[in-house]
Amino acid sequence: MTDKPICLIVGAGDYIGAAIAKRFAKGGFHVVMGRRRGELFASLVEEIEANGGSAQGFTWDARRQETATEMFAMVEKEIGPIDICIFNVGGNVSFPILETTERVFRKVWEMCAYAAFLTGREAAKYMVVRQKGSIFFTGATASMKGNAGFAAFASGKFALRGLAQAMARELSPQNIHVAHLIVDAGVDTKFVRERKRQAGIDVETLPPDTLMNPDSIAEAYWYIHHQSRDGWTHELDIRPFAEKW
Amino acid sequence: MTDKPICLIVGAGDYIGAAIAKRFAKGGFHVVMGRRRGELFASLVEEIEANGGSAQGFTWDARRQETATEMFAMVEKEIGPIDICIFNVGGNVSFPILETTERVFRKVWEMCAYAAFLTGREAAKYMVVRQKGSIFFTGATASMKGNAGFAAFASGKFALRGLAQAMARELSPQNIHVAHLIVDAGVDTKFVRERKRQAGIDVETLPPDTLMNPDSIAEAYWYIHHQSRDGWTHELDIRPFAEKW
Amino acid sequence: MTDKPICLIVGAGDYIGAAIAKRFAKGGFHVVMGRRRGELFASLVEEIEANGGSAQGFTWDARRQETATEMFAMVEKEIGPIDICIFNVGGNVSFPILETTERVFRKVWEMCAYAAFLTGREAAKYMVVRQKGSIFFTGATASMKGNAGFAAFASGKFALRGLAQAMARELSPQNIHVAHLIVDAGVDTKFVRERKRQAGIDVETLPPDTLMNPDSIAEAYWYIHHQSRDGWTHELDIRPFAEKW
Amino acid sequence: MTDKPICLIVGAGDYIGAAIAKRFAKGGFHVVMGRRRGELFASLVEEIEANGGSAQGFTWDARRQETATEMFAMVEKEIGPIDICIFNVGGNVSFPILETTERVFRKVWEMCAYAAFLTGREAAKYMVVRQKGSIFFTGATASMKGNAGFAAFASGKFALRGLAQAMARELSPQNIHVAHLIVDAGVDTKFVRERKRQAGIDVETLPPDTLMNPDSIAEAYWYIHHQSRDGWTHELDIRPFAEKW
Repeated sequence: MTDKPICLIVGAGDYIGAAIAKRFAKGGFHVVMGRRRGELFASLVEEIEANGGSAQGFTWDARRQETATEMFAMVEKEIGPIDICIFNVGGNVSFPILETTERVFRKVWEMCAYAAFLTGREAAKYMVVRQKGSIFFTGATASMKGNAGFAAFASGKFALRGLAQAMARELSPQNIHVAHLIVDAGVDTKFVRERKRQAGIDVETLPPDTLMNPDSIAEAYWYIHHQSRDGWTHELDIRPFAEKW
Repeated sequence: MTDKPICLIVGAGDYIGAAIAKRFAKGGFHVVMGRRRGELFASLVEEIEANGGSAQGFTWDARRQETATEMFAMVEKEIGPIDICIFNVGGNVSFPILETTERVFRKVWEMCAYAAFLTGREAAKYMVVRQKGSIFFTGATASMKGNAGFAAFASGKFALRGLAQAMARELSPQNIHVAHLIVDAGVDTKFVRERKRQAGIDVETLPPDTLMNPDSIAEAYWYIHHQSRDGWTHELDIRPFAEKW
Repeated sequence: MTDKPICLIVGAGDYIGAAIAKRFAKGGFHVVMGRRRGELFASLVEEIEANGGSAQGFTWDARRQETATEMFAMVEKEIGPIDICIFNVGGNVSFPILETTERVFRKVWEMCAYAAFLTGREAAKYMVVRQKGSIFFTGATASMKGNAGFAAFASGKFALRGLAQAMARELSPQNIHVAHLIVDAGVDTKFVRERKRQAGIDVETLPPDTLMNPDSIAEAYWYIHHQSRDGWTHELDIRPFAEKW
Repeated sequence: MTDKPICLIVGAGDYIGAAIAKRFAKGGFHVVMGRRRGELFASLVEEIEANGGSAQGFTWDARRQETATEMFAMVEKEIGPIDICIFNVGGNVSFPILETTERVFRKVWEMCAYAAFLTGREAAKYMVVRQKGSIFFTGATASMKGNAGFAAFASGKFALRGLAQAMARELSPQNIHVAHLIVDAGVDTKFVRERKRQAGIDVETLPPDTLMNPDSIAEAYWYIHHQSRDGWTHELDIRPFAEKW
């Protein structure tokens, strides 16, 4: 058990998820993280603790209902009440429609929307009792626009947005802040740099801040969670200054 | 085999689907219809034939990939090339988020979006070869707005909209017209009349045209399909004059 | 006076306006047209009459309230009740924000939105009494997206969209159909062909239907006006199959 | 001249504007404010100074180009470089369309959009030279939805949104942060309380935070201005937890 408020991050990957974890740990939260390969959390937990924070990482397949139910129960019972739950599972793939297998279409939805539903509902289960909490979802460019080659991903991200909106309209009056943050650009990752290179862009000579630092995104989560409830934001976009949109 | 152009309706229910079938049959199309209980098509086919049209109905579970693949192959081989494919499967349910089971969330998505993907992709498979055809999807109020109590349905309908948009951007340049028609009100069905009654509305004394006649919706599908390709509509809304929105 | 239903087009230019005029004349309407230089209507009226239709053109500055008031009164008194009023004044200009003079910003708004307000309100004045009629507004790409270099035009077209939406919500329950048609591409005009050429595109070798024929747009106005009131469309987009969006 | 960064607020009224002024003064900015009746700033300046901040208020009619040009020149020359410029002029009125005079329609647009253009362009003039700055615009419910009875206001607020979007797409790559903040509810003012009372709502017994405290809105401006440029927000909504939307 911890006396700190708890920030749970489901889908805490190496970039946005890790940055959010560090931001909330720095701000005095105990951070609980889940991802499919929980063993990958070791160095992140170490880094957070070295900086005076506290965090725990778990193996957590967000697409399994049993996992969702058990893990939320475990966190609530053994660690403490979840103050904020952030859903950050990815799922960005691109295929022409004729090359989109049913498996891909289904998996992308499971990652983008079904896992979000399981996570959001389990979080709501505990927060509704307390009439208090935050549930945030990470969106993407594809949440707003279905581009050619992104049928599966756009469908998944649109699904997430519809879920977030309906949950916000239902849960906000119960003092639960539901937000949808649209990350409308490539975060600075090896994957994105490689993709830029393949598109003929010399990544090394890009102006500073052309790619997003995950820390900047984490700051938005931190801010939104700390809004007074008479002025809650449900949706905002985040993109680098030089991004075309 | 038929010499007429073929209109395929997947999810041809008693209201919108049946109205579209009659409209296209009247306009000289051979109508092929699918729904889970194919035996229910008997009287509709009879009615269409009595009016000088032609139609066939099949048992067709739109949520099964094997069915989609086989049925499309069957229609294309044994009946003729599909000129227009209309996806009209429903899925409207309402539950508070805490009472939304994973089964409901999944089923609603399977009906709204996964079945639409299977249907749209199989249609595209044949149409891309011919560089010609139309693929239309039926949306709802929940396609644009996630209302309280509609987490599952809004998520499913948003997912359909993202799919439709991505398919439109990919397939339109290949001369395939992909459209998303938003039916933003209750069609005049027993179900809707009962719901109005429960809400204290005296359905019998409503002004004429307050509830939608499915024929009016069918007319929109007919019109959109006959647009010249230099002026295609991707999205339009349809609602009765007296509807609040 | 005429016994035909009357279609009034304010801002009837050489392309979309003229095409709408011909479409409604062909369909049995008496067409009344206004533009700033009324003398330019001569050949269009001649063409419509040669095809068995009837039309009249007037000098009409849509941005002047006195003109709006007087002309609507004149049409209603001397020609007959207006069945449908279409507002089609343009205003597409592009300037960097620092080169956008206050005169340009104001004029563009006057053309896009202020003239639309005067036209729509005067039309409503007569239609509300009859509890019957249609008021349609022509939108553009800039109605949905404010692109760089289009501050004045996007602001004007967004303003038109807000006006159309508010009028629809207020007037639809009074049996007046208010619609907003988004023409999301360049119509095939000398101006657009020249702009394509300057952008290095060989206009002569474009695939057929890459540029919009105004007749295709006119067909949308015709269709929307003939919708049954239990299934009215408020907004639809129109673009050529090959257009990027 | 001041050594502090300068926050300029055009349309600094008694509620949101004043709250933003206090927030930025507290944060170390020198606040320059303009409104039509500059004499009303006296007590606000006093309050800010009493709290250790610095501020100046001017009579400033935001709808006059000469005023915009002269006042920006004056601030830049005599006070210092403007770091952030916030446009906060209101304009909320409601009239049925037939009772909306041309004067009302024009005035509302002048307040919502024309004044925003003059303010934004003058700010950009100086910021483009420095390749640095922020320009924020205050939106409202009517920025997103044109409700019945709000033709003039919705048209004006839509116009503002189109302007803000086009300016963002043009100026962001020049390191100027353009944002549009949608205040989607009634701020706690005498006017709003009176309106609630007239609607039969007992304002005194509303749950705490049902009406928005302008300070909560001010906090959003503060946060958005301090975002790192690799993660800028262009648009966000702000509404109280209990608000219907």
